[in-house]
Amino acid sequence: MKPFQLASRDHCATDTIITIVTPSRKVLIGEGYCTVIAGPCAVENKHDYLYLAHHLKDLGADILRGGLFKPRTSPYSFQGLGRSGVDILAQARLETGLPVITEIMDVRDLDTLYPHIDILQVGSRNMQNYSLLEELGRLDKPVMLKRGLSATIEEWLLAAEYVLKGGNKQIILCERGIRTFEAYTRNTVDIGAVPLIKQLSHLPIIVDPSHATGKWKMVAPIARAAVAAGADGVMVEVHQDPDRALSDGKQSLTPENFARMATQLVRHAQINLKQAASQALL
Amino acid sequence: MKPFQLASRDHCATDTIITIVTPSRKVLIGEGYCTVIAGPCAVENKHDYLYLAHHLKDLGADILRGGLFKPRTSPYSFQGLGRSGVDILAQARLETGLPVITEIMDVRDLDTLYPHIDILQVGSRNMQNYSLLEELGRLDKPVMLKRGLSATIEEWLLAAEYVLKGGNKQIILCERGIRTFEAYTRNTVDIGAVPLIKQLSHLPIIVDPSHATGKWKMVAPIARAAVAAGADGVMVEVHQDPDRALSDGKQSLTPENFARMATQLVRHAQINLKQAASQALL
Amino acid sequence: MKPFQLASRDHCATDTIITIVTPSRKVLIGEGYCTVIAGPCAVENKHDYLYLAHHLKDLGADILRGGLFKPRTSPYSFQGLGRSGVDILAQARLETGLPVITEIMDVRDLDTLYPHIDILQVGSRNMQNYSLLEELGRLDKPVMLKRGLSATIEEWLLAAEYVLKGGNKQIILCERGIRTFEAYTRNTVDIGAVPLIKQLSHLPIIVDPSHATGKWKMVAPIARAAVAAGADGVMVEVHQDPDRALSDGKQSLTPENFARMATQLVRHAQINLKQAASQALL
Amino acid sequence: MKPFQLASRDHCATDTIITIVTPSRKVLIGEGYCTVIAGPCAVENKHDYLYLAHHLKDLGADILRGGLFKPRTSPYSFQGLGRSGVDILAQARLETGLPVITEIMDVRDLDTLYPHIDILQVGSRNMQNYSLLEELGRLDKPVMLKRGLSATIEEWLLAAEYVLKGGNKQIILCERGIRTFEAYTRNTVDIGAVPLIKQLSHLPIIVDPSHATGKWKMVAPIARAAVAAGADGVMVEVHQDPDRALSDGKQSLTPENFARMATQLVRHAQINLKQAASQALL
Repeated sequence: MKPFQLASRDHCATDTIITIVTPSRKVLIGEGYCTVIAGPCAVENKHDYLYLAHHLKDLGADILRGGLFKPRTSPYSFQGLGRSGVDILAQARLETGLPVITEIMDVRDLDTLYPHIDILQVGSRNMQNYSLLEELGRLDKPVMLKRGLSATIEEWLLAAEYVLKGGNKQIILCERGIRTFEAYTRNTVDIGAVPLIKQLSHLPIIVDPSHATGKWKMVAPIARAAVAAGADGVMVEVHQDPDRALSDGKQSLTPENFARMATQLVRHAQINLKQAASQALL
Repeated sequence: MKPFQLASRDHCATDTIITIVTPSRKVLIGEGYCTVIAGPCAVENKHDYLYLAHHLKDLGADILRGGLFKPRTSPYSFQGLGRSGVDILAQARLETGLPVITEIMDVRDLDTLYPHIDILQVGSRNMQNYSLLEELGRLDKPVMLKRGLSATIEEWLLAAEYVLKGGNKQIILCERGIRTFEAYTRNTVDIGAVPLIKQLSHLPIIVDPSHATGKWKMVAPIARAAVAAGADGVMVEVHQDPDRALSDGKQSLTPENFARMATQLVRHAQINLKQAASQALL
Repeated sequence: MKPFQLASRDHCATDTIITIVTPSRKVLIGEGYCTVIAGPCAVENKHDYLYLAHHLKDLGADILRGGLFKPRTSPYSFQGLGRSGVDILAQARLETGLPVITEIMDVRDLDTLYPHIDILQVGSRNMQNYSLLEELGRLDKPVMLKRGLSATIEEWLLAAEYVLKGGNKQIILCERGIRTFEAYTRNTVDIGAVPLIKQLSHLPIIVDPSHATGKWKMVAPIARAAVAAGADGVMVEVHQDPDRALSDGKQSLTPENFARMATQLVRHAQINLKQAASQALL
Repeated sequence: MKPFQLASRDHCATDTIITIVTPSRKVLIGEGYCTVIAGPCAVENKHDYLYLAHHLKDLGADILRGGLFKPRTSPYSFQGLGRSGVDILAQARLETGLPVITEIMDVRDLDTLYPHIDILQVGSRNMQNYSLLEELGRLDKPVMLKRGLSATIEEWLLAAEYVLKGGNKQIILCERGIRTFEAYTRNTVDIGAVPLIKQLSHLPIIVDPSHATGKWKMVAPIARAAVAAGADGVMVEVHQDPDRALSDGKQSLTPENFARMATQLVRHAQINLKQAASQALL
């Protein structure tokens, strides 16, 4: 018997679909299309973020990302704007109508983030921060749970179980690469996680090819692979000027490359949909 | 500077295309389509192999696989038919017109295999068996070099370099999963290897989703992902009756599932081709 | 240049020695002997804990361990006594005079733990919980920082840097095994971390062979190896009745086996001390 | 049931002891002391090798190592003297009376090596080169089987089983580090393999701290750890002038450092022996 229960396919045969509503838009995750989440690694300032947000909306992004609290390996790296950046995300949300997602690292930031953020992200370093998971389990907001850097599929679903157990059923899983011996890429994206999660669980799964590879040239191929394998969406980093990004510039797409990738993803997703219409996808 | 030379994109800007000719057919690997290699893990007997070979030809397979020498972790497992099975592969090749590929483990088997086999495969356990690589470097036959279970991309290309240095330029790289901590799958397929190899090298790369996952239900999704990421082909295990296979039954497709997957692959490959026609794929 | 600064050997050539004082005893970590931390994985009840605490004191333990907040992979496993167990640790400390160490998972528990606990442990799952690290950086109490399951040495020292940067210089590093592909043991203990940390940093390092191996039969050999390699101490799980432990029974020593191991450790440590007296240990 | 049979402790409760006899000496491996194998990574020329061989004998080495066929990741690196170097090893053996060990990579070299070499080493890259293992299984000479870079304990013992099945029972296992994500060291030495092999098998096990770490400063601490954990010996690289070594200079000890380490090892081994005299080591 599998150790996870509420997260398991046995518990719920139907795919969970996450619905996010903003004043001017409704976005679904897990209903068969490819939901595209895009934005810079970190929110750097109001002007640039708003400009990019409008640009991404025009290019077809479904959800805006932007980190306020950046978990950085070194205490000397840029740590994000923190609470003071919430207003920027709120304004981008209002102006574009797109939902926004940002990472939460500390339960004490919940009050600040809750009113303005549509999806609360748990980063890979905090996948097993059980205090945080339990707190999010009490919310009525979607949670995106990134896979830990060396978490097994089972541990990942058990982390989701901590949230589900609290009553919050709106969980999106995000594969973002695991740690292996390979040195050319930042991490190794585990595309196999996509069909495996689809088999084991009813929760939607998306892939983050930016963090998984650390190289912008690999982002589009991995995003296509994710969609072809059956992922419900992708989350990618886009920056107006990647060379000047305060964090993760090397893995950020320019808006032009983002647009090209988005077109490709639609086509690959359509094949899966047509396929699924006539027969169940394996 | 990269330590590999003849294998590098710098040495040869044009993609290497492997051409294999049988009495009745010409098969290319690396020209933009998805070459499909299929067959049972091991050749078990003449009757079954020939029957399956004709079936696979009808379903669109481009190349037939079939192991004669099986490198098994335990000395007590079925080790393959050995030299006595060469005639079966030769007959299948003659009857179907499809090229055949089989693994070589010992330089002393070269004389037996050479006249009848179109592609000589080096298995993951032998990726750094330099005596074998050097011997294959002197041949005028294509070599498929599987990635070692924990080989870095650099070590893999340096293993290819051993063959190239001998003068044999017909090398097909095959990603077949790497070893990680994940226990639900046999190995973790590294789809990122596909775009990375395309960037670093001119050699064609295919993916083996059967060995990479160890689960037949994951084979089609991973094969689709490989093609969407830009792979030149896939190699999959197919068995008439997977439950009775002498080896690797759990990861083998039935002919029916193979046919369904093949159709999907063509569609995903076409998107990439259309895309490439108007602009370079990232 | 190394990315860590305050943690580096360059910043401080002299070994950091941690001094812990209780009403009746002074314990040092990092001064050349082998400090032995022992106790059950989790505090289960007052009677058993106090009984074992006295036993361990008699057998030569230097510090008592006992988990109150247990970070468990599954939300359905025993989660520890929580805040209600603090009194038990406090009483054991008072009765035996031995310092006590317990894990902190949530900054909101700090007020409860601070007055009664001598060393606050950060578990491997929280090695990169930066909110927690920053909070501990403001304390005047020793912190034991366990290595994350797949943390590199550099990431580990950078996590220590988060605490050091806040002003708290009393950090003990604890190697507790890393995640690899090996399945016979729970994790793979990285004994090489001991000489490497000694080279790179001035902070003391101890080894936890219980979590690293998951098998009590391997605890004594790995503890001996740790000491021979130059570790400043070991932390081991001991339980009166391992078969009945509420968590981690399989890796717990009986008091008898603990006593035998402790004798061995003293002997191996003495060799290193004699060696160091005449010449620097490599 | 364990998949290995002849290698298992169940098959043979008594520890296997390997006896090697030269014209002037008898060396045992597995009888409780610490057997020390030392020498340069590669035999570079006669003069230097003989000089070092005499030096190592005087410093207490039990067996001489020296690579003739060097399996190098790049075809452009120094590949060893090959067959022409056998005479050098033979002369060192004759002059010092010490047994010699060298690696065999190709079954076709067996005739050349057999008459002059006391232990034939199978390198980590060839741990699953079954043709080679089967050939060595027919010999009446000890075989040292290095663990593959990402081999599980079970796969390693099954590789030994290939040799044992052929009738050759003289196998020495050698742990030489496994591949992990850690980048500061070449590999991660798995000291846990020592007690685990002792539990699962009757075969002797030694540790190679030179290849495992890639850093000479870590060699002595890891060698001490290995002995303290119960290993039957160590194999270390020693070079007269490490900075000028044709291969692996960074991990080679000078004779002076070798001598210091050898003294330490004797002391740690004695503790284990005393301990074992009164009670079984855990």
